[in-house]
Amino acid sequence: MQNDTLALAQALIACRSLTPFDEGCQEILINRLEKIGFGIERIRCGEVDNLWARRGTNAPLLCFAGHTDVVPTGPINKWDSDPFKPEIRDDRLYGRGAADMKGSLAAFVTAIEAFVARHPDHGGSIALLITSDEEGVAIDGTVRVVEALKARNELIDYCIVGEPTCVDHLGDTIKNGRRGSLSGILTVKGIQGHIAYPHLAKNPIHLAAPAIAELTQTRWDEGNEYFPPTTWQISNINGGTGATNVIPGEVTMLFNFRFSTASTVESLKARVHEILNRQDFDYDLKWEFSGKPYLTPRGNLVDAISNAIRTVVGIEPELSTSGGTSDGRFIADICPQVVEMGPRNATIHKLNEYVEVKDLEQLPEIYRLTLELLLLR
Amino acid sequence: MQNDTLALAQALIACRSLTPFDEGCQEILINRLEKIGFGIERIRCGEVDNLWARRGTNAPLLCFAGHTDVVPTGPINKWDSDPFKPEIRDDRLYGRGAADMKGSLAAFVTAIEAFVARHPDHGGSIALLITSDEEGVAIDGTVRVVEALKARNELIDYCIVGEPTCVDHLGDTIKNGRRGSLSGILTVKGIQGHIAYPHLAKNPIHLAAPAIAELTQTRWDEGNEYFPPTTWQISNINGGTGATNVIPGEVTMLFNFRFSTASTVESLKARVHEILNRQDFDYDLKWEFSGKPYLTPRGNLVDAISNAIRTVVGIEPELSTSGGTSDGRFIADICPQVVEMGPRNATIHKLNEYVEVKDLEQLPEIYRLTLELLLLR
Repeated sequence: MQNDTLALAQALIACRSLTPFDEGCQEILINRLEKIGFGIERIRCGEVDNLWARRGTNAPLLCFAGHTDVVPTGPINKWDSDPFKPEIRDDRLYGRGAADMKGSLAAFVTAIEAFVARHPDHGGSIALLITSDEEGVAIDGTVRVVEALKARNELIDYCIVGEPTCVDHLGDTIKNGRRGSLSGILTVKGIQGHIAYPHLAKNPIHLAAPAIAELTQTRWDEGNEYFPPTTWQISNINGGTGATNVIPGEVTMLFNFRFSTASTVESLKARVHEILNRQDFDYDLKWEFSGKPYLTPRGNLVDAISNAIRTVVGIEPELSTSGGTSDGRFIADICPQVVEMGPRNATIHKLNEYVEVKDLEQLPEIYRLTLELLLLR
Repeated sequence: MQNDTLALAQALIACRSLTPFDEGCQEILINRLEKIGFGIERIRCGEVDNLWARRGTNAPLLCFAGHTDVVPTGPINKWDSDPFKPEIRDDRLYGRGAADMKGSLAAFVTAIEAFVARHPDHGGSIALLITSDEEGVAIDGTVRVVEALKARNELIDYCIVGEPTCVDHLGDTIKNGRRGSLSGILTVKGIQGHIAYPHLAKNPIHLAAPAIAELTQTRWDEGNEYFPPTTWQISNINGGTGATNVIPGEVTMLFNFRFSTASTVESLKARVHEILNRQDFDYDLKWEFSGKPYLTPRGNLVDAISNAIRTVVGIEPELSTSGGTSDGRFIADICPQVVEMGPRNATIHKLNEYVEVKDLEQLPEIYRLTLELLLLR
């Protein structure tokens, strides 16, 4: 199984699947999955290739989720080897997507093959949900497959996303949730005028300052067992015509919440408006909701993958909900237990991305053991 | 005298004296002044023409001050007539500089001519201080002449600047001072970082907000009999990389004081630093001092010109210190009594600038009568 995972990862890296293009990766996976009895459903949306593959019809359904697309290479002459020609040096497999996440895709397939070989009549069902639009706008990818599944009431019981979650050692981190992301574009309105006649103008920067101070000092929630407290940050502020003798007519701010499951989109919006409505100014506020939070508390899936890590690697994984958003947020819509666990993320999105060859041996073992713990009992 | 003032104003408007170029205006004035016994001193600095003309050696010295340069025309096809071809329509003289301030220059000359004709052996002395660099950077203009006069201890007792000060009627407003202008570029420093990890960053926009609120709420002084309270305004604020997921490393603000004689540059700087130093951030602050305030309380000059207005126009002038900065601030350095009084300013710096023909009749009368009140007693 080990050498097989390495070879499959190499084959996938050799496809130049710059987001949102799959470039043949999914056909490589399909070719393997069909041989072990998976039903294949290709769901193409625009330029994006999506794959839903399933073996079995019984509950529970355990789904492995991931993406074949990769981020751009950056300056190719700064790589020590061609990012699309996988190369092994110092027991590491180098190439764009090695860690994010073609190594995980290979591990999914070889883990399932090994599991099916040992337990051809396993309980439950196994599925793969694969997209080529995770690194880009993520509009025609996982979210489309989830919509299709939801429409026919095909729900998932457990989902393992193969995102590279580990920090120092394979298995040290399981992401059992992600914070939500809610953004706003706030324009505070004043009255433009000459700086020598401020009584004829209304300075929106002055008006906004106490509101910014109050929003900054607001404690939105206390977080909970799994999440840190919700944070609010301004990323950009711009006001003024450039002229030094003009009081501007408005000032615009972009802000962002990263929020825990202790708050909701509605509660955060209401509290922002409550603070703004108390101020002495008119304003425009456009909300942009870019990601729901999700959370998988300790339970069957967290316990199973934790046990598998302990058995295979011999370390105790930590649960984490930190970082940006992931496709996990979409899947959580039709799946009560979603976790993310994959290789170390130290080199993802960087030059000379790699995955440890040893991790490509242990990762399929972790996934296979998790299958046994969840589908054989 | 009336038709003469109109003709002289027309001759001056016909010179395309876009700042900082004089384009022959001062030679027109010199030609007239030499004929009535003025000593002429041409002080050229770079591209700027300056003129110091004086008649008499005794005290008191009454000086008329002004500028021959004009601001750009703006889109010339939006004027109803060529801005450099003076045209009379509806008892108004149209042309760039008609009100700001070639009408005043013409009135200076015809007023002095009439005064000298009646009182060839008048007491005191009369001078003109004319520059072609008032509308531009004002570096090589009035300030250079004042330096030269100061160096040889030739001080001025009374100065009338011909700036267009009036609002609704000729004579309704005398400016007996101007506020000072003090600017600053403030950069509040934080630590850049990813918006999903605010604990690893320090948001300078958040840090700056309470300081802005405090500076906004500060009462810098109460003003005094002649000045409104000092004002502080932010004209521009900019922070952020444009990216919505990055906490910026710094935020920069441009601010400006318009300050009364109840405060000093030093007192204002000290109070800003006192407020900033109490905050929890590092900052850079570059000061730019762009204009001292000056004030001429009621006294000989204000009384004389007020009496002249009352006599000629029949209205009671108001004293004002509002508006931007003017060359009066430089002259105040060598003259204890400086006032500004000229035609209505409704159309200055705009399309279709004009001066009322009637004002060109009354304005020289006001100046002439002021000469009599100050130099004949």
